[in-house]
Amino acid sequence: MSVDMNTDLNQHISQQFNTELEELRSQLLAMGGAVEKQVSDAIDSLIDADSELALSVRAKDDDVNFMEVSIDEEASRILARRQPAASDLRLVIACTKASTDLERIGDEAAKIARFSMELAENGESPRGYIEARHIGTHVRKMVQDALNAFARFDADMALAVAQEDKSVDREYRSAMRELVTYMMEDPRSITRVLNIMWVLRSLERIGDHARNIAEYVIYLVKGTDVRHIGLKKMKAEVFERSPSDA
Amino acid sequence: MSVDMNTDLNQHISQQFNTELEELRSQLLAMGGAVEKQVSDAIDSLIDADSELALSVRAKDDDVNFMEVSIDEEASRILARRQPAASDLRLVIACTKASTDLERIGDEAAKIARFSMELAENGESPRGYIEARHIGTHVRKMVQDALNAFARFDADMALAVAQEDKSVDREYRSAMRELVTYMMEDPRSITRVLNIMWVLRSLERIGDHARNIAEYVIYLVKGTDVRHIGLKKMKAEVFERSPSDA
Repeated sequence: MSVDMNTDLNQHISQQFNTELEELRSQLLAMGGAVEKQVSDAIDSLIDADSELALSVRAKDDDVNFMEVSIDEEASRILARRQPAASDLRLVIACTKASTDLERIGDEAAKIARFSMELAENGESPRGYIEARHIGTHVRKMVQDALNAFARFDADMALAVAQEDKSVDREYRSAMRELVTYMMEDPRSITRVLNIMWVLRSLERIGDHARNIAEYVIYLVKGTDVRHIGLKKMKAEVFERSPSDA
Repeated sequence: MSVDMNTDLNQHISQQFNTELEELRSQLLAMGGAVEKQVSDAIDSLIDADSELALSVRAKDDDVNFMEVSIDEEASRILARRQPAASDLRLVIACTKASTDLERIGDEAAKIARFSMELAENGESPRGYIEARHIGTHVRKMVQDALNAFARFDADMALAVAQEDKSVDREYRSAMRELVTYMMEDPRSITRVLNIMWVLRSLERIGDHARNIAEYVIYLVKGTDVRHIGLKKMKAEVFERSPSDA
C-alpha cells in the first residue's frame, strides 16, 4: 500500500470515527431534549391538575430509559472499536456519565407526575404550588443550560449552572419550612401537603443532577474532574486552566 | 526482536494490564467497604442518638467522594492506555458506573447522619425508629451482597439483590403510611416525624443504588444490560445467557 493510500485510509477512518462521536453527542442531546420536556410537562401537570398529561409523562419514562441504554451501548462500542484518547475519550465518558443523570432526572419527573395525579384526584394541597412552579422553572432552566453548555462545549455556562444549584437549595429549604408550619396549623392537610413536599424534593434533586451534568461539561472541556472540589476551586479551574491534552 | 522476546514482552504487558484491572476492582471494593461502614454507622447514630458518630459519618463523606474521583481517574487511564475489549472493557465500565452509585449511597448516609443529629439534639421522633432499623438492616445487607456479588462475579447473587429491592419498597411505603397517620393524630410531632421520614427516604434510595450496582454485576458477568427490563426478564438473562464474548 502506498503512503498516500494509507493517508487516505486513515482520513477515512478518522472521518467515520468523528461521525460516530458526533452521533453519540447527538443522541445525548436528543435524550436531554426529551428529559427537559418530561420535566416541563410534569410541572405543568401539577400546576394545571392535568392527570392526562401526568399519565403521559409516566408512560414516556420508558423511552428515556431506553435512550440511556442505547447511549451506553454506543459508548461501549466506540470504546472497544475506536480506542479513543484525550478529548475524544473524555467526550465518550462524559456522554455515558451524563446519560445516567438524565435518566435520573426522568425518574424524578415521573415521580412528580405521580404526585400530580394524586393531588388532582384526591384533593389539592392548600399550599406549595407557587413554590413548586418557581423552583420548577428554575431547575428546568438549569437542565436546559447544562445541555446547551454540553452542545457548545461551554465551560463558563456550565460553571453558571453549578452556581445556580446553591440558590435552588436555598429556595427549597425555605419552601419546606413554610410547608411544615402550614401542616402544624392545619393537620387535616398533612397528606396533601406531603405530596407537594415530595414534588419539591424531586425538583431539588433535578437541580443536583443538572449540576452533575455541568460538572461533566467542565471535565470534557477543561480536562479536570471538578466534582466535590467546591465552587471556588471549580471557578479557578474554568478560568485558569486550558486543557492539557485537548 | 526474536519471537520469544516478543511473547515475553506481550506476557509482561498483559500481566501488568491484569494487575491494573485487579487494582481497579480492589479500589472499587475498598470504596464499597467504606460506604457500607458509612451506612451502618449512620443507622447506629440514629438508633443510639449518637451525635458524635453522626458527625464522623458526615466528616468521612469527603473520603468517599475522593475515592470516586480516584476510581474514575484510574478507569480513564486504563481506557486510554490499554484499550480493553470484551469482559475487560465491561469491568472498567462497571467499576466507574458502580462508583457513582457508591458515592450516592455515601451522600444518603451523610444525610441520614444529619437527621440523626437533628433528632438527637432537638428532640426524638415518637415513632419510626423500629422501621428505620428494620429497613436500614435490609438495605445495608443489599449493599453488602451487591459488593460480594461484584467481588465474586456472581450474577445469581446480584439477581437476588435486585429482587430484594421490591420488598424494601413495600416496607418503606408501609412505614410512611403509619408515620403520616401518627402525624395527623399528634401534629406537635410533625417536625420530628418528618426527620425520620427523610431518613426512611434515604434508606429506600440506598436500596435503589444497591440494585443499580447489582445490575452492573449482571452486565459484567453476562454481557447484557439489564437496566429497565423488569425482574422477570432479568432472571431470564441470568439463568439462560452465557456471555457472548467473555
